[in-house]
Amino acid sequence: MIVSPKSGTPKKNLMLFAGRSHLELAEEVAKHLNVTITPQSAYDFANGEIFVRFEESVRGCDAFVIQSHCDPINKWIMEQLIMVDALKRASAKRITVIMPFYGYARQDKKHRGREPITARLIADMFKTAGADRIMTVDLHTAQIQGYFDGPVDHLLAQTLLADYVREAYPEENITVVSPDSGRVRLAEKWADQLGGCPVAFIHKTRDPHKPNEAVAKRVVGDVRNRLAVVIDDMVDTGGTISKAVEQLLNEGAKDVVIAATHGVLSGPARDRLANCGAREVVFTNTLPIPEEKRFPTLTVLSIAPLLARAIEQVFEDGSVTNLFNGNA
Amino acid sequence: MIVSPKSGTPKKNLMLFAGRSHLELAEEVAKHLNVTITPQSAYDFANGEIFVRFEESVRGCDAFVIQSHCDPINKWIMEQLIMVDALKRASAKRITVIMPFYGYARQDKKHRGREPITARLIADMFKTAGADRIMTVDLHTAQIQGYFDGPVDHLLAQTLLADYVREAYPEENITVVSPDSGRVRLAEKWADQLGGCPVAFIHKTRDPHKPNEAVAKRVVGDVRNRLAVVIDDMVDTGGTISKAVEQLLNEGAKDVVIAATHGVLSGPARDRLANCGAREVVFTNTLPIPEEKRFPTLTVLSIAPLLARAIEQVFEDGSVTNLFNGNA
Amino acid sequence: MIVSPKSGTPKKNLMLFAGRSHLELAEEVAKHLNVTITPQSAYDFANGEIFVRFEESVRGCDAFVIQSHCDPINKWIMEQLIMVDALKRASAKRITVIMPFYGYARQDKKHRGREPITARLIADMFKTAGADRIMTVDLHTAQIQGYFDGPVDHLLAQTLLADYVREAYPEENITVVSPDSGRVRLAEKWADQLGGCPVAFIHKTRDPHKPNEAVAKRVVGDVRNRLAVVIDDMVDTGGTISKAVEQLLNEGAKDVVIAATHGVLSGPARDRLANCGAREVVFTNTLPIPEEKRFPTLTVLSIAPLLARAIEQVFEDGSVTNLFNGNA
Amino acid sequence: MIVSPKSGTPKKNLMLFAGRSHLELAEEVAKHLNVTITPQSAYDFANGEIFVRFEESVRGCDAFVIQSHCDPINKWIMEQLIMVDALKRASAKRITVIMPFYGYARQDKKHRGREPITARLIADMFKTAGADRIMTVDLHTAQIQGYFDGPVDHLLAQTLLADYVREAYPEENITVVSPDSGRVRLAEKWADQLGGCPVAFIHKTRDPHKPNEAVAKRVVGDVRNRLAVVIDDMVDTGGTISKAVEQLLNEGAKDVVIAATHGVLSGPARDRLANCGAREVVFTNTLPIPEEKRFPTLTVLSIAPLLARAIEQVFEDGSVTNLFNGNA
Amino acid sequence: MIVSPKSGTPKKNLMLFAGRSHLELAEEVAKHLNVTITPQSAYDFANGEIFVRFEESVRGCDAFVIQSHCDPINKWIMEQLIMVDALKRASAKRITVIMPFYGYARQDKKHRGREPITARLIADMFKTAGADRIMTVDLHTAQIQGYFDGPVDHLLAQTLLADYVREAYPEENITVVSPDSGRVRLAEKWADQLGGCPVAFIHKTRDPHKPNEAVAKRVVGDVRNRLAVVIDDMVDTGGTISKAVEQLLNEGAKDVVIAATHGVLSGPARDRLANCGAREVVFTNTLPIPEEKRFPTLTVLSIAPLLARAIEQVFEDGSVTNLFNGNA
Amino acid sequence: MIVSPKSGTPKKNLMLFAGRSHLELAEEVAKHLNVTITPQSAYDFANGEIFVRFEESVRGCDAFVIQSHCDPINKWIMEQLIMVDALKRASAKRITVIMPFYGYARQDKKHRGREPITARLIADMFKTAGADRIMTVDLHTAQIQGYFDGPVDHLLAQTLLADYVREAYPEENITVVSPDSGRVRLAEKWADQLGGCPVAFIHKTRDPHKPNEAVAKRVVGDVRNRLAVVIDDMVDTGGTISKAVEQLLNEGAKDVVIAATHGVLSGPARDRLANCGAREVVFTNTLPIPEEKRFPTLTVLSIAPLLARAIEQVFEDGSVTNLFNGNA
Repeated sequence: MIVSPKSGTPKKNLMLFAGRSHLELAEEVAKHLNVTITPQSAYDFANGEIFVRFEESVRGCDAFVIQSHCDPINKWIMEQLIMVDALKRASAKRITVIMPFYGYARQDKKHRGREPITARLIADMFKTAGADRIMTVDLHTAQIQGYFDGPVDHLLAQTLLADYVREAYPEENITVVSPDSGRVRLAEKWADQLGGCPVAFIHKTRDPHKPNEAVAKRVVGDVRNRLAVVIDDMVDTGGTISKAVEQLLNEGAKDVVIAATHGVLSGPARDRLANCGAREVVFTNTLPIPEEKRFPTLTVLSIAPLLARAIEQVFEDGSVTNLFNGNA
Repeated sequence: MIVSPKSGTPKKNLMLFAGRSHLELAEEVAKHLNVTITPQSAYDFANGEIFVRFEESVRGCDAFVIQSHCDPINKWIMEQLIMVDALKRASAKRITVIMPFYGYARQDKKHRGREPITARLIADMFKTAGADRIMTVDLHTAQIQGYFDGPVDHLLAQTLLADYVREAYPEENITVVSPDSGRVRLAEKWADQLGGCPVAFIHKTRDPHKPNEAVAKRVVGDVRNRLAVVIDDMVDTGGTISKAVEQLLNEGAKDVVIAATHGVLSGPARDRLANCGAREVVFTNTLPIPEEKRFPTLTVLSIAPLLARAIEQVFEDGSVTNLFNGNA
Repeated sequence: MIVSPKSGTPKKNLMLFAGRSHLELAEEVAKHLNVTITPQSAYDFANGEIFVRFEESVRGCDAFVIQSHCDPINKWIMEQLIMVDALKRASAKRITVIMPFYGYARQDKKHRGREPITARLIADMFKTAGADRIMTVDLHTAQIQGYFDGPVDHLLAQTLLADYVREAYPEENITVVSPDSGRVRLAEKWADQLGGCPVAFIHKTRDPHKPNEAVAKRVVGDVRNRLAVVIDDMVDTGGTISKAVEQLLNEGAKDVVIAATHGVLSGPARDRLANCGAREVVFTNTLPIPEEKRFPTLTVLSIAPLLARAIEQVFEDGSVTNLFNGNA
Repeated sequence: MIVSPKSGTPKKNLMLFAGRSHLELAEEVAKHLNVTITPQSAYDFANGEIFVRFEESVRGCDAFVIQSHCDPINKWIMEQLIMVDALKRASAKRITVIMPFYGYARQDKKHRGREPITARLIADMFKTAGADRIMTVDLHTAQIQGYFDGPVDHLLAQTLLADYVREAYPEENITVVSPDSGRVRLAEKWADQLGGCPVAFIHKTRDPHKPNEAVAKRVVGDVRNRLAVVIDDMVDTGGTISKAVEQLLNEGAKDVVIAATHGVLSGPARDRLANCGAREVVFTNTLPIPEEKRFPTLTVLSIAPLLARAIEQVFEDGSVTNLFNGNA
Repeated sequence: MIVSPKSGTPKKNLMLFAGRSHLELAEEVAKHLNVTITPQSAYDFANGEIFVRFEESVRGCDAFVIQSHCDPINKWIMEQLIMVDALKRASAKRITVIMPFYGYARQDKKHRGREPITARLIADMFKTAGADRIMTVDLHTAQIQGYFDGPVDHLLAQTLLADYVREAYPEENITVVSPDSGRVRLAEKWADQLGGCPVAFIHKTRDPHKPNEAVAKRVVGDVRNRLAVVIDDMVDTGGTISKAVEQLLNEGAKDVVIAATHGVLSGPARDRLANCGAREVVFTNTLPIPEEKRFPTLTVLSIAPLLARAIEQVFEDGSVTNLFNGNA
Repeated sequence: MIVSPKSGTPKKNLMLFAGRSHLELAEEVAKHLNVTITPQSAYDFANGEIFVRFEESVRGCDAFVIQSHCDPINKWIMEQLIMVDALKRASAKRITVIMPFYGYARQDKKHRGREPITARLIADMFKTAGADRIMTVDLHTAQIQGYFDGPVDHLLAQTLLADYVREAYPEENITVVSPDSGRVRLAEKWADQLGGCPVAFIHKTRDPHKPNEAVAKRVVGDVRNRLAVVIDDMVDTGGTISKAVEQLLNEGAKDVVIAATHGVLSGPARDRLANCGAREVVFTNTLPIPEEKRFPTLTVLSIAPLLARAIEQVFEDGSVTNLFNGNA
């Protein structure tokens, strides 16, 4: 006869799971947490359907599932959804979805009629699959936090990036530049962190005198003879930002540095960034930046320590907010 | 014996319902639609609890429930929620919640840790009460559309306001000014609509040379000898915007006009706006602006025709998007 | 490198949160629990929108959020909803909503067609905001427990009140009186608790002989030369109950005592109660009764010890039912 | 090639479905509506599992599914749930669940701790299965309307019953009697409808002088030499009500008539009612009353015309409320 | 003053609850777990409505609710749903529904149009009532796991049955036989477990040469002079399987043994099985098999040890999968 | 002033939408329906994110959204989800998701522990996105119908395929063969449709005499000198089925024909099928079969007429079941 205790003390158990999109980052996080990634079988069937099975019992665990939403992005999102479903059905106690880069964050509103709001759909699909919480870094807009019906731990890489810039260019007179009119607030936050420097932005305008040329661009704000630090949350094809660099140099900036959290780096991005005249380009590794996308002036800072600290706070019921002095 | 037809053709029936917050606007909308507001009993019990009962059958109707979220805002939100609940339980076929001003839209993210996202909560509460659709005007951020799990008809008053300004000041050299770094994108849209004029914004900055003064302000962009049109989605206490006017005049603007969709006009707003030096202040009537809040340089444009056209499109399965050339 | 334990024992942590409606009661509860109310920023914006932020980490806590739904009732309900939303998004482990008086409990059915059932709406809105559990005192009807999709700890103040009456009037021949036909069952429960005394009620009737007088009232049951204890769950404007006192004295009652759980005391209530001829009026402090509403014959009993005991049982996985001998 | 019209006018089509519990009532309703009950296969498998299949297409229909919750009550509830599931999956446009007697309505609160609230569970299960609306007659408590998240058409049989009594006993001096303290409100409503007659109720009390006899009963109110009309929503085993008759006759009532909506009539009910001394017992046929439960003084009024009128109003988007002068 | 600790360590507490359908099994499970079944009041009202109240506090417990879905099946399903509702409302921490036999599992698809999918409905109703998890044995089809939105612990009795057969008939040349074309996969799994023996099945076919005889049956596969072990998940009326035995003996099988998990044994099943010529019939006790249904060649194996081990694993956050070498 | 009619007759309007995966099929369906596919912008951003916007108003339409889930399957599923989200937000009245091949249908259960049930996840995600109904062809298992909480129109291609085979091979003695033990039921249905011919299947078995060879295969049933028609719902890599063909030829089949609904045809499938010795291979075009995957013995039947007829029935509230003589 089995003799079972009728009562006891519950245990909690941190388990880290990694999709296949960016194993290097997951392993770095695991190392910081001093855990191993839970072994799993994950592969594609011949028609592209993804299969996942965990090799160890996950019953009752506090699961953290990390996946970077890089290209092929729909595949990696689906893989993470499937992992969450498997964890739910295998009785994980709590499931935290970690998306260092939140896919489809740019489709966070209907720019025009009859468009989707895919960023909300993503949040709802993870809820449906079984996610209890989302952890992410530098959302395209902070409002996306509200798309998930539950806690969102929104980590900020700005301090990491700004500290790097401040230390790398201690002598320069910096102007923080938003590459378009939508990131001026972010530029202002950077300016605060760099001690109150000026800000500027690139203004797209219809030139009333040249009706056939749809859009002109000009710098609003003071950049002459200053180090222009062009900031953004992400750089995708690099078109906007490389043109901003040119414009800034044209208008007299002494030098330009680009700093952004997410290096999406699609298509021509590498070449554009390498050749646009920027003195340095700084990203974090929320997305994988493989060797062939790298170039001499590129610097990649690791987001892994921040993710690991946040996971630890979540697991230990500590405070993630305090990691950012109350600002997240 | 009753003889009932077994089959037939369904009918649809537009009914307009109005909360008590801004009857004038509701009646104006009704007039444009050529309907009457559905009679109802709506009053407060002695302890502040709201009671609502509709005096006519609403079964099967296409219900449009209009309420402006003005002060006392929690009361009017609750009244609208209660009206929706009553409509749902009385078998309305479809319930469209019209909030010309969406209350709590500014709390659309956690600015710091441990804050609510009340704008999402509002959307969810209306969904819970039974709302099928939301119609609103100029959301504080467009992302709020994604907070509602269903269609949101997001109307834009910008054309109404910009057309007015263009006609009122045909000869002026205009610079569109955002009162802070967060509305520069909106300013750019205005500039487009006004034919490609310059934009500027007021930059708040920590002055590194005066550590004890937390924030300095300065205008970024060119306003000297120009008509500065300061735009925003809403004006609440008028503090930010009236200081912006002063700053603009200090930095050489020839004249300043303020234009915003929502005239919240709390507390000292009237006096600040009346006395800040602006040549004209333009709002729509999404919120009631009672006589005592008015002042000589104030112009109020009616949003009722736009609301009526949008209601009509919704009722007739037409296109709301087309009212805005595809932009909503 | 951070070194994190992979597993451990979870902790539980009671945190008490208080809305601004009735801080005195919250502080009394806190004192009984030997905890402090969690510090928070809570204030109104100029247009009446409420802002809340907690000053300490709430991650993983067992949160108890107390708010009395007094006038302005919609504001305080909304504040409590917003607090729940903030707790959910800040990762509280479990959220218990304490409403010593459940607002809108009287709108618990459609009295006539096309009315809301606001009591259900309230329950659903708290569920939507993130509440896991409701704790409340003496619901207007017990069926409201079923409006919440989750556990409801329904505390009863009847013993508190009845014990007080029994001790205050040990020598009297008591008849328990319901002020109308809807509370006769409650009167019977009181009669049981007072040892089996008679019951009576006030009957509203259309007088068939006086067609122009819509309603006559008469006492059904025996009150002559007895102490009539008029009971109810709440007293709002005091109209019904003060007329009941007069009727009872007219029909020969020796004396009248009023006892009810919730002293809503709107509008003319204070004067009516003070002057209706009742020997004593007894309430609990589920709602604040400020100095200006008090009068010489008023007695207020504290509900705080009961709330504190119930919170303790919930936190410790004890039994709330046992606090009431199985009756709750 | 098929040629299909791209657009057209929708049709609506009333279909009536009947569970097997009370076909006689369903057929009577069908006759009043001039429709036929949709043919179906419905039978029990050997182990008691119920099978249902509709024999005609139900796609797009406005479905009304009638089932009386009589013994074996769990079977008939499950059959109705299964019918709703089949209708949902077969694309019925709207599903109205008609339960002339709402099963488990008495379990509408926790009478003591650790009880279910089965009346809420019933509502939720029908919602889960796919019900859009509930139609029912004389709920045990009106609050149950709020248990369903959607419209509830709550029909009242009181007029039907009271009109019958008034016409049957035109010369009598009537007192309306509640059989216990919980139905006094209902008695008062009856008294109104009968023109303002007196009311009384049976009071259960612990006799303080006879501690060993737990409960005594006595009539509160005036019944001597009057016709006592004992009213209730339902009569189950008939114990309470037959004892009430005896008590009323003992205390001098001239005659007693029993009137209730739902004749559950379990176990000894028939004999108790037949022999308790009541001059007449009046029920409706919301529940089947088979021949063997009938007795000479029993009168059964048909609820079918009322159900048919209500179905017609729902189908035609008319008003159910108006069938009851606004009271439902 | 009460002094309550502000923080502490949570406890977990296993409680076992049993419906009234198959107490013998529940008690056997309790014995294996060394717990007692939680005392409760559970009885039927006169009209068949079920009442349940637990006699001990269940607050915070890890509840396991066992009920076998035998005839009257709708009653026992409803009782289990009501128990779950009561546990949810009484604050159980987690509720595991144990259905050793999952009722309505055969209605797991629409065999033809306009049928319900009752197996999904069952899963949804338990979710609605408050179930967190389902534990069940040998589902009719494994896809039913997916009907529940949460973890399903699907236990397999095949090893128990196959081990018994292997030990009972060590010398025989076995062919595993599916009684129809739908269980051939199951037969193949049995064949694997018995070491790789042949399989066969009974093929129902329209005989093209005898158009008036709708269906002929024949054995596909090799059974001559072999021990045919006819397997299935359940035996209801025994018609199919007893005819299969006859057919197998006709086609030269040396002997036949029947083995199935669930002995539903409705109507004529006992006599058919006792007289069909099978040498032995083996079931588990997932369903009660009362004395009057037993017969000399019947063997009943107990499922209780397996249920107890699985409950223990769930309670201890162990692995249920490992009980089946990864196959469940 | 706008003059709007207050009431009117609703219209219904069929609109067909096509994802980019299999435009040829969508256009064929459109042609049969005599409609045009609604124009849309659909393209991939540089990082693989999908963008969709409809070029015409979809307000109030009856939307049918067709997408074949072929490789890259996760992309096409996500595109269809995004289209549904856009339709929901743009106020489509009803959204029918057409997936001629239901992706991930094979992951319809946990084959072993800690696996997902992706087929359920797919259904839930479409529900979350806003789908009202699913239309699909020949699900891998019919139980998947129950994964969607709403109507599923499950179309069957078997008649199409079987009619073709019967006409192509009128003189042959056919045995229908299942390629493994899991499709024997399907083979039996084919056999019925072909007039009652024999069935067989390929049995995988551990050979007890050769412990080192894990699996042997043999044909169970009679195929010698007969035309073996190997049937399945889908053919992916073709491994199992091409080995089945070889085995059948080895065991004396005169000829082999393969017939399946879904030609997934991944990787080596084309070559395997072309060279396995089968006389003919028959698929439908639920999935695109591009030129490079075709081979001389391949026959592709069009599913478009069936889809078009079903869409028409759904739009016209006709009967889909009747298209299949009641069997779907």
